[in-house]
Amino acid sequence: MAKKIKAITPRSENYSQWYNDIVLKADLAENAAVRGCMVIKPYGFAIWERMKELLDKSFKETGVSNAYFPLLIPKSFLSREAEHVKGFAKECAVVTHYRLKATEDESAVVVDPEAKLDEELIIRPTSETVIWNTYKNWIHSWRDLPLLCNQWCNVMRWEMRTRLFLRTSEFLWQEGHTAHATEEEAQERARQMLRVYADFAEKKMAMPVIRGVKTPTERFAGAIDTYTIEAMMQDGKALQSGTSHFLGQNFAKAFNVTFADKDGEEKLVWATSWGVSTRLMGALIMTHSDDNGLVLPPALAPIDVVIIPIYKSDEERAQISELVEPLIKELRDHDIKVKYDDADNKKPGWKFSEYEMKGVPVRLALGPRDVEEGTIEVMRRDTLEKETVPYEGIGKRVEELLDQIQENLYQRALDFRTEHTYSCDDWDDFCEKVEAGGFVMAHWDGTAETEERIKELTKATIRCIPLGQPDEPGKDILTGKPSERRVLFACSY
Amino acid sequence: MAKKIKAITPRSENYSQWYNDIVLKADLAENAAVRGCMVIKPYGFAIWERMKELLDKSFKETGVSNAYFPLLIPKSFLSREAEHVKGFAKECAVVTHYRLKATEDESAVVVDPEAKLDEELIIRPTSETVIWNTYKNWIHSWRDLPLLCNQWCNVMRWEMRTRLFLRTSEFLWQEGHTAHATEEEAQERARQMLRVYADFAEKKMAMPVIRGVKTPTERFAGAIDTYTIEAMMQDGKALQSGTSHFLGQNFAKAFNVTFADKDGEEKLVWATSWGVSTRLMGALIMTHSDDNGLVLPPALAPIDVVIIPIYKSDEERAQISELVEPLIKELRDHDIKVKYDDADNKKPGWKFSEYEMKGVPVRLALGPRDVEEGTIEVMRRDTLEKETVPYEGIGKRVEELLDQIQENLYQRALDFRTEHTYSCDDWDDFCEKVEAGGFVMAHWDGTAETEERIKELTKATIRCIPLGQPDEPGKDILTGKPSERRVLFACSY
Repeated sequence: MAKKIKAITPRSENYSQWYNDIVLKADLAENAAVRGCMVIKPYGFAIWERMKELLDKSFKETGVSNAYFPLLIPKSFLSREAEHVKGFAKECAVVTHYRLKATEDESAVVVDPEAKLDEELIIRPTSETVIWNTYKNWIHSWRDLPLLCNQWCNVMRWEMRTRLFLRTSEFLWQEGHTAHATEEEAQERARQMLRVYADFAEKKMAMPVIRGVKTPTERFAGAIDTYTIEAMMQDGKALQSGTSHFLGQNFAKAFNVTFADKDGEEKLVWATSWGVSTRLMGALIMTHSDDNGLVLPPALAPIDVVIIPIYKSDEERAQISELVEPLIKELRDHDIKVKYDDADNKKPGWKFSEYEMKGVPVRLALGPRDVEEGTIEVMRRDTLEKETVPYEGIGKRVEELLDQIQENLYQRALDFRTEHTYSCDDWDDFCEKVEAGGFVMAHWDGTAETEERIKELTKATIRCIPLGQPDEPGKDILTGKPSERRVLFACSY
Repeated sequence: MAKKIKAITPRSENYSQWYNDIVLKADLAENAAVRGCMVIKPYGFAIWERMKELLDKSFKETGVSNAYFPLLIPKSFLSREAEHVKGFAKECAVVTHYRLKATEDESAVVVDPEAKLDEELIIRPTSETVIWNTYKNWIHSWRDLPLLCNQWCNVMRWEMRTRLFLRTSEFLWQEGHTAHATEEEAQERARQMLRVYADFAEKKMAMPVIRGVKTPTERFAGAIDTYTIEAMMQDGKALQSGTSHFLGQNFAKAFNVTFADKDGEEKLVWATSWGVSTRLMGALIMTHSDDNGLVLPPALAPIDVVIIPIYKSDEERAQISELVEPLIKELRDHDIKVKYDDADNKKPGWKFSEYEMKGVPVRLALGPRDVEEGTIEVMRRDTLEKETVPYEGIGKRVEELLDQIQENLYQRALDFRTEHTYSCDDWDDFCEKVEAGGFVMAHWDGTAETEERIKELTKATIRCIPLGQPDEPGKDILTGKPSERRVLFACSY
């Protein structure tokens, strides 16, 4: 049996501690010296790299190009769009000086008061302002549109309460910024990118999501419409996993970006922006992992298969290694990422537990008896089921197993969500359900006041108005006022 | 003939203006609203992306993993390593506050004086300090070594005189940081990464480089040895294109990073760091480009081949397009990145000049006569030579041509460097040669005083002491004092 050398807190005992334990013990990330910032460790970063690679490919398939815009934003830019500044000024890092100098005794460095900037600079919390200030010079005619740029970068929002991956002052993300000649085209682009995110979440992260539109209260600061994908975590809470904004002409107005249309008329440009961040790492962890550690969908796992030899003597070890060599080759021929861990300073039990903690989807183990009988033990991380099989045809078998794991993780998460999604028409029932954790579809009268009141009373917010659901007249769950359709309520991260 | 719609300043007239013209007119980058920072445009970024991809693969082949460390560094960290702080404190962006607030009349935002940080934070100019502060917790035993991490990120050095790609306040780079149990292993890693950089420069950028070690004056702040690759630009100046540092135990001492060795003894860790940046874009441009615009080696070109149809009527255009379709397929089957530009709102001459400006290595053009005769016009960007060939077998032909272009660019740059490299033993000759532009191999007495004096008199610096050259006793070019070997002098970027 695998000895639990790095035991973690069970979910049932303390869900939040369970999450932190996994992040730390699976070597994904840790807190940095600077308050609220994180270090993403190599294993965690390898997962993020894989996410980036797949998303980047999807963006490019829709015609988007990458570019890079500056980290620092002049303070005055933020004020150009009235809603935008309200949303972001309260939590930003401000650069005021550009030089340090040694103290007189040379024992330390201090800020050089003579190196004060005329205008303070903000570390980007998001780049709409600096990008639209640039687009102004790139867009003159309808021939310059659509303009479809994305950047992968770091951003900073000075958060007071932080949690690794879920809410950190600095985080990594991508932000796409597009410019269009017509409202329809911009609206369609905003929805298209939501589909790209939803596909990625469901097919690669194996995480089912609800696609919807935010209420005005929950919109991005400066947007006309904010589209969102919302996923359910294992505690029944919602995690907003990606957003795509239709910005109308707000930023075009603020930065005076116009174009000469085919009809010769000078018109304001239409805009979208859309982003996902390292927050997806938090969503991935909380969707699939268990009390033994991280569970990863094969599509995002840095290692698909780990092979562990079980031996007593050097002779046995050599025998096993000889047998393993063609197995590794066969697996790699099937495009499977394999690690053979024959390190001599750790026991098999330690290794079993370590790779379970790290969520490696498949574990193969071989001992002397397997060598004799031509068999190998296969364990799948998602169900922890073990099976002893002939090593003949192992490549194809593992390939199929990885597909099954990917599929099973999605189905399991979908079943969990279905079980924890409720339709409520009674206030007491509503309160009970949202408190216990889950998605509640309920009627809302459409006012910000009611939305706010429900939040105060239950902590639940409207996660979104799901897309594509039929209209269904009813009565607001709290006020009893008329409602046109149900919306999705939940407590959230 | 191609009409030069975006004519650029010839090199002979104003080299520096020529460089700026190419950066702007080939759509590579432009100045940002914030002083000294740049926007990397999609076409320029596509080249950088390709550089990243190739370098990243090379790093990983040597066992390096990527990670991410925070953008902000507590001010006190910088002071921990005495040389390091001297090198970087003078030019850094300082974050002093974490919030803005609206003015009373709500017309603008100002820094909220109540949100002053207890300790100022520096935007990383390089990350040795924050990384070694982290490594302290990752390294306990010899089993934790070597530790080989790299990060791709943005850094900031507040430069007073900036030039796009060559010297900007914010730039993109990678910084590798490794930790080792022994001095030998760290030294070998520093040299190994220099070899990786040199290989990349020569094989992918088609840019010959001199490998060498810096004099103490030119070392990285905090290093024991700084290895460098130096390339010659077309004005004969040197451009430092990548550096790899053996840091000894300086950062281990500053951050108290020790490990229990196999013998049970507690020892200080040995370190290296190494980096290349978007400065390579400047090197690439200045190594190969000509008075028609950018010239790109195929290994880094976002588009290998552009196909341009020449037609008068819609019917001709349709005929050509039909013929081009299988050609595109054939080229793509040879892994060649093709663009077919049949845009109707631009004339062929404009297109010719545009893709020359952008450095696309091969241009194919087809007119009605080519359709009749089964031929196609091939132009190679490096020599501007044109040839009309049958379109049968175009895939293989273009593939070979791309290889020839890659090879020719390297050889041409190497020949140029050879022609402009001199061995000098006479002071007047030395002054003349460095002023005219070129690499000068001359004797140096090994003192910082002489190095400084030569710089004052001629602007030339010691770029490096080349590796692998035989000892050759002689006399210092200025002082006549004894010297053990020649060193490389040049004016530099």
